[in-house]
Amino acid sequence: MGKKQVMLPAAEVDLTAVKYEFEQVQAPHLTGFSLKLLVGLLEAPFIGPMLISHLKKQNRVVEMLRNTVIPEPPMFRPEFPPQEPESGVAHLEEDGKPEDRVELALKCLPHYDPDETWIADSIASFRYWKIRDYAYAYRSKLTTPSIVAERFIAAIGEFDNKNPSTPLLISYDPEDIRKQAAASTQRFEEGKPLSVLDGTFMAIKDDIDCHPYPSNGGTTWLHEVRKVQKDAVSVSRLRSCGVILVGKANMHEFGLGTTGNNPNHGTARNPHAPDRYTGGSSSGPAAIVASGLCSAALGTDGGGSVRIPSSLCGVVGLKTTYGRTDMRGALCDSGTVEIIGPITSSVEDALLVYAAILGSSAADRIALRPSLPCLPYLCSHEGLNAVGSLRLGKYTEWFNDVFSTDISIKCEEILNLLSEKHGCNMVEIAIPELHEMRTAHILSIGSESLSSLTPDFEDGKGKYFSLDTRTNLALFRTFTASDYVAAQCLRRRIMHYHMEIFKKVDVIVTPTTGMTAPIIPPAALKSGETDLQVSGNLMRFVVPANLLGLPAISVPVGYDKHGLPIGLQLLGRPWGEASILRLAAAIEEICPEPKKKPVQFFDLLKGN
Amino acid sequence: MGKKQVMLPAAEVDLTAVKYEFEQVQAPHLTGFSLKLLVGLLEAPFIGPMLISHLKKQNRVVEMLRNTVIPEPPMFRPEFPPQEPESGVAHLEEDGKPEDRVELALKCLPHYDPDETWIADSIASFRYWKIRDYAYAYRSKLTTPSIVAERFIAAIGEFDNKNPSTPLLISYDPEDIRKQAAASTQRFEEGKPLSVLDGTFMAIKDDIDCHPYPSNGGTTWLHEVRKVQKDAVSVSRLRSCGVILVGKANMHEFGLGTTGNNPNHGTARNPHAPDRYTGGSSSGPAAIVASGLCSAALGTDGGGSVRIPSSLCGVVGLKTTYGRTDMRGALCDSGTVEIIGPITSSVEDALLVYAAILGSSAADRIALRPSLPCLPYLCSHEGLNAVGSLRLGKYTEWFNDVFSTDISIKCEEILNLLSEKHGCNMVEIAIPELHEMRTAHILSIGSESLSSLTPDFEDGKGKYFSLDTRTNLALFRTFTASDYVAAQCLRRRIMHYHMEIFKKVDVIVTPTTGMTAPIIPPAALKSGETDLQVSGNLMRFVVPANLLGLPAISVPVGYDKHGLPIGLQLLGRPWGEASILRLAAAIEEICPEPKKKPVQFFDLLKGN
Repeated sequence: MGKKQVMLPAAEVDLTAVKYEFEQVQAPHLTGFSLKLLVGLLEAPFIGPMLISHLKKQNRVVEMLRNTVIPEPPMFRPEFPPQEPESGVAHLEEDGKPEDRVELALKCLPHYDPDETWIADSIASFRYWKIRDYAYAYRSKLTTPSIVAERFIAAIGEFDNKNPSTPLLISYDPEDIRKQAAASTQRFEEGKPLSVLDGTFMAIKDDIDCHPYPSNGGTTWLHEVRKVQKDAVSVSRLRSCGVILVGKANMHEFGLGTTGNNPNHGTARNPHAPDRYTGGSSSGPAAIVASGLCSAALGTDGGGSVRIPSSLCGVVGLKTTYGRTDMRGALCDSGTVEIIGPITSSVEDALLVYAAILGSSAADRIALRPSLPCLPYLCSHEGLNAVGSLRLGKYTEWFNDVFSTDISIKCEEILNLLSEKHGCNMVEIAIPELHEMRTAHILSIGSESLSSLTPDFEDGKGKYFSLDTRTNLALFRTFTASDYVAAQCLRRRIMHYHMEIFKKVDVIVTPTTGMTAPIIPPAALKSGETDLQVSGNLMRFVVPANLLGLPAISVPVGYDKHGLPIGLQLLGRPWGEASILRLAAAIEEICPEPKKKPVQFFDLLKGN
Repeated sequence: MGKKQVMLPAAEVDLTAVKYEFEQVQAPHLTGFSLKLLVGLLEAPFIGPMLISHLKKQNRVVEMLRNTVIPEPPMFRPEFPPQEPESGVAHLEEDGKPEDRVELALKCLPHYDPDETWIADSIASFRYWKIRDYAYAYRSKLTTPSIVAERFIAAIGEFDNKNPSTPLLISYDPEDIRKQAAASTQRFEEGKPLSVLDGTFMAIKDDIDCHPYPSNGGTTWLHEVRKVQKDAVSVSRLRSCGVILVGKANMHEFGLGTTGNNPNHGTARNPHAPDRYTGGSSSGPAAIVASGLCSAALGTDGGGSVRIPSSLCGVVGLKTTYGRTDMRGALCDSGTVEIIGPITSSVEDALLVYAAILGSSAADRIALRPSLPCLPYLCSHEGLNAVGSLRLGKYTEWFNDVFSTDISIKCEEILNLLSEKHGCNMVEIAIPELHEMRTAHILSIGSESLSSLTPDFEDGKGKYFSLDTRTNLALFRTFTASDYVAAQCLRRRIMHYHMEIFKKVDVIVTPTTGMTAPIIPPAALKSGETDLQVSGNLMRFVVPANLLGLPAISVPVGYDKHGLPIGLQLLGRPWGEASILRLAAAIEEICPEPKKKPVQFFDLLKGN
């Protein structure tokens, strides 16, 4: 235990007011017998660490490293070898206005035919409303953002009154939504919408700042020690496009779990099967999109946290290249594995939201030199034909290492269709040291999370952490600094292997998860649970994107025998978002299985 | 304890022969009461870590991270903001031949006047022979490399027979030296020397590979587990310039100390005062140059290990920018703080050796984007006049925090002379968080060293480590992964402060060390010693260059009241070697105090 201290950001420290402190080292001078005795004591179990612990406390080391909040991210990042730019894409101005980027993204989409949606939809099978559907409806005065807002507020009320409850949003203010909707409605009345995203409803994961809501990271107390003063950078970009921000979506506490279990606020339930998990940690963002209540949500992904729930809920989840989105204003702004990415019901919507939020921080631009962001043309004649040139790498034994063969079979079917219809080349690959990869990942994300959580844990908040988080932190606390360094050496190896593989293939294809949505054990609702078997199945394929900073997308490809969604994952080269988005769009187009309407679904556009 | 395993370098792994291993996680599924019980146990002292330790062993985590030699460096490096190129310099081709770079370096030097050295030297006070003196003597047939070699071999014999012994070289083969000298002599006979460095004698620190010698890092056993197959990259560059490599110079075991104490091979003694330390860890390299036996030596510097012994022995030591020299073939090729740099008796020789060895590794070029290497003109009319444009930053309270005021007074005198004669502007600066800086440094270098030493330590070699090293490792073992991450956050802060300061100044000036050469306690010769007070005094000023990767040079500026050398340190911007070399040359030129002949000195050129 120790009182938390918070450092002022380095940029705000007044260099003219620095006071010199004379260096004083508290340690004995030893040689000969006394030195031998000391080494004996130091290398003894228990006594040695205690002795050193005492010396370190005397020298303020523990206080500095374990009780202090240091506002700067650590001084290292993934290292990407230089990349060839992607072809057949529209290049974006990273410094430009989000509205302009969204405008350019629109040009990459196929022609929008309102008849297909608005006249013929009675005969079509189930589909989600897309962002362009809302945009058309508002512009054609078929409805207004304010009308949709009322439907949204009513639907959330319905969710809240369910038994068992299935909390999608854990901070939410109907009045704030009405205000945003009214402003948007007025912009449409004046014929001046801000962008195609104006008036669309989006939710923000509870670990990304969205003013005026607190960012609790799925806890009940974090707002007491961390105030939200303004939007996170990516959220402010959405807001400037006219997006209506509906509140903070539920999540696995601190993102440290893959089921979405949350004993603090209640566990979000899978819209396709309410007795099952959504997957996590972005549980609320995936569920709120899958249930039709939001066009999109922003999640964070440090170990599959965008892709896993997207896969389990039957929606699209994009994990961006490390450094492609700006992490300022997210709880995890200091890690080397986590990014912010969109969850949407279609690939074209993922493209639009991605275009709005992208843009590296200044520090990432210096360290990572991101290649120019670009968007693929998703219209058949210009873009999807280019899919045939993509070589897809598949590690068959890994691909087939799934809990239920429904998953690998369905994913395999889609790949066969890609070969047939687009002529994609399938290349058999092998990736060495997958166990090392998982270990290096847990060492990295665990140590980086622990480092940011320790000051509050030690400052008396530990007892409010969920049992699941406490189990994880107990594990992370046993990681030594030397383990962490070794893990980074492994990381360089794994990067080497992937870069070798990416000389032969353009995209690596796997199932997104090794299992479909797991059942929620009733006992787990109150106290949480720890089940590393389930974690292993859910995380099997998602880790390389985080460990190496690569872009990846999960796209729905059908359902298992229980009617649960299955996702296919596409892993791309560094900064290769355009290739995986284009391939995902082609998969969406050729996928033979019609979409199933989720058990929990709301039609906000027409009302239902 | 655990048997050491060695991974094949990733680049040599056969990707076509990879065998898939099904993922198996060994851990219980718990919820409800059993989960609460588990958390109680996990958070209990002793039991918790033991329980997790058991689980980690079952899952091969400990074996992978603590018993395995991973050949790749970790995937992070210092991050340098982009830098303006230096002015008034000669640019070098990093990919060119070392001989050509040395040739260009020669053009940066003042005109060489042999009369000054060879005719008038009887009236001059003590001076060291420079590389150009040897070159002139060989070309003028005043002597030959073979003649000098015999003098060198005789002198080393004299050192070995001293009581107490003062081992400068711990691996050395007279026949190998004679062979190299004969080849060089023949080149001069044929009128085809390879470069101005041909026939000059240089020593290599025992942690840098120099074929056919073992690299023991100051131990007696490392050659049993690590074979040297070829020269380190920097050594091979010297060899291709015709340098005669005399063997492996003594050092503090594994570089983990700043005195140069070495109970395995005996402790090198300060040529100016044989009852005193040379400083370390590059003890042998500094002493062999200071005693006149070598024109230069290569050392490594992870925490002042080139600069501290250079300062204490009265010679010049250059710590290069992180990534400027290629670390392949050095024991510490995986750290984020250590570099290879030259130790010489004059600044012009430092320039020549630096020109020969520089050149980043391919990985560093990708990650760090080094600016083009360049050399300053050291001739008065072209170069030294430009010194006046350099703004020197001085943090007076820090500057004055020394064990003996002789040091700060002497350094201050030189700065005053710089102002008077060159018009240098002195700027008062303040650097915040110096204690944090020291802590972040020890966390970084300690964890990185521990990570590379642990597999051998655990594999039964631990008992052969010196008591001093074992004390250090016991401390490093208590560093947690989360501590390491926190230290990297501190590192970014300290980098920010320095970059702010470098907007106002070009070079930061400090004493090199906070004390002159400490006395060797007789009891410490056999068993070693640990004295953090002395370490603190020796390391006080050297740490920023390592923590931030900045270039720094130590240049002799006089002697204290005991006749012990004092060094002034110049800390430059990233890739700013040229500025600090030019300033060092100006200081050398204006320094009013004549050089003292060391007690242990040999004139190899004329014989004595």
